[in-house]
Amino acid sequence: MRRRPSISASSSRARIGRVWLVGAGPGDPELLTLRAVRALEQADLVLYDALIDPRVLGYAPRAQRFCVGKRAGKASVAQETTHALMIRAALAGKRVVRLKAGDPFVLGRGGEEVLALGHAGVPVEVVPGLSSAIAGPQAAGIPVTHRAMAQGFLVVSAVPEEAFFRIVPASPPAGLTVVVLMGLGARAAIAGGLTARGWPSSHPAAVVLGAHTPRQWSWTGALGELAPLALPADRADLPGIVVLGDVAHLGPRIASATSGFSLSNVEQRHGTA
Amino acid sequence: MRRRPSISASSSRARIGRVWLVGAGPGDPELLTLRAVRALEQADLVLYDALIDPRVLGYAPRAQRFCVGKRAGKASVAQETTHALMIRAALAGKRVVRLKAGDPFVLGRGGEEVLALGHAGVPVEVVPGLSSAIAGPQAAGIPVTHRAMAQGFLVVSAVPEEAFFRIVPASPPAGLTVVVLMGLGARAAIAGGLTARGWPSSHPAAVVLGAHTPRQWSWTGALGELAPLALPADRADLPGIVVLGDVAHLGPRIASATSGFSLSNVEQRHGTA
Repeated sequence: MRRRPSISASSSRARIGRVWLVGAGPGDPELLTLRAVRALEQADLVLYDALIDPRVLGYAPRAQRFCVGKRAGKASVAQETTHALMIRAALAGKRVVRLKAGDPFVLGRGGEEVLALGHAGVPVEVVPGLSSAIAGPQAAGIPVTHRAMAQGFLVVSAVPEEAFFRIVPASPPAGLTVVVLMGLGARAAIAGGLTARGWPSSHPAAVVLGAHTPRQWSWTGALGELAPLALPADRADLPGIVVLGDVAHLGPRIASATSGFSLSNVEQRHGTA
Repeated sequence: MRRRPSISASSSRARIGRVWLVGAGPGDPELLTLRAVRALEQADLVLYDALIDPRVLGYAPRAQRFCVGKRAGKASVAQETTHALMIRAALAGKRVVRLKAGDPFVLGRGGEEVLALGHAGVPVEVVPGLSSAIAGPQAAGIPVTHRAMAQGFLVVSAVPEEAFFRIVPASPPAGLTVVVLMGLGARAAIAGGLTARGWPSSHPAAVVLGAHTPRQWSWTGALGELAPLALPADRADLPGIVVLGDVAHLGPRIASATSGFSLSNVEQRHGTA
């Protein structure tokens, strides 16, 4: 068996460039893993996505930091450019952290980045992070599974729409929770398409904006109320998720049990359903 | 807005009993979150599941520790007994960590425990953890999503079988990854049932045992090879997951790009597919 090279052991050896592909989790810096913190502490260069909390970057005080994500009104750095930046820095002997919101392997193009680095001969390690697919609903009190209510959950991107409607079942099986990422802009198309296919407009639904951030906002209601739902204008910049399934209605109950002793300030709205 | 009570602030106040429902992640203690470590450090009592790595318990040096999970040949403590233990200790002023493998809200009965604690008036906070639903495949190099290959993933328990076959689609939509938890014992029933329903026996499949532990083992092949697959006898105690979907075949490529610089010793087998 190969000996496991630890980060601390390697730092005493001759310096070799390398890349850590690190999931930063949903926002709160306390939800970083110990390994993510150790990678950041040793980084010479951090290439981060737009949604990363500045306090997370604080764990990499001696690193150059460069945002490669999409910012309001500005295009993101092309994926190929990000690959080239990582490869060039690592081949020059730098320790690079590629810091991604959530988990690198959930709709984050992490697999592509590992393959590009491998192709260039750059050592790379993936450090998984908390995905908002699970921690997002949890922040609003919603368990993606719950005994006698949900035995499975489907995570899907709202875009492209063609893939969404191919992957989401035409009618909702009992016991399935659906978590839609990047779905708020497309919520009218999603809700309209699902009800046209036979999903009841009374199907429980929830929205969580900015999960695990101080500006978190959530709503519980029904699929039929999703399209006309007015989101708070001052939080249009926050990433949002849509949850469809019976567990949505557990949210207010579980959030109330954890209120006064919870990670986040939670502002909650209830629909009329 | 309510002020966010931090763990460190509350420790200087009058002592009030409380419960943290903490996800310990898949195994490796370095994959604990900072918040999980802080909760453990302050715990008077830790009630933990059987799959928890002893090194994780090392973060709670001054706590009483009690295993409430299933152990080989012995039944687990009844769910109601776990509730009663938590409630009694918290009402007596103790800081209790209920430590769960993976994430508390993924097939972990975390929602039930929060509701029971809330009903008893015990303050409770949920600390999410890395779920093996995502970090398990990742440990074997498998991204649950991948551009132009998988735009969504379904996580489902193999038991009860009736729920499994209700939730998993009768034929596999392009672009969907299916991750089956607690599925190894039922792999013949799963594979047989899916192929009987129309899934091709050539559908890519992978198995990961003991993800993110030193004894990790993985296999890549096809659905038709899953039923007769011989698992290593010396690892029958390890939790295992089954992955179905095109991304299974990325596993060896991505694992090879990360080899020599990875978190875990990884032993890999490839099927004939």
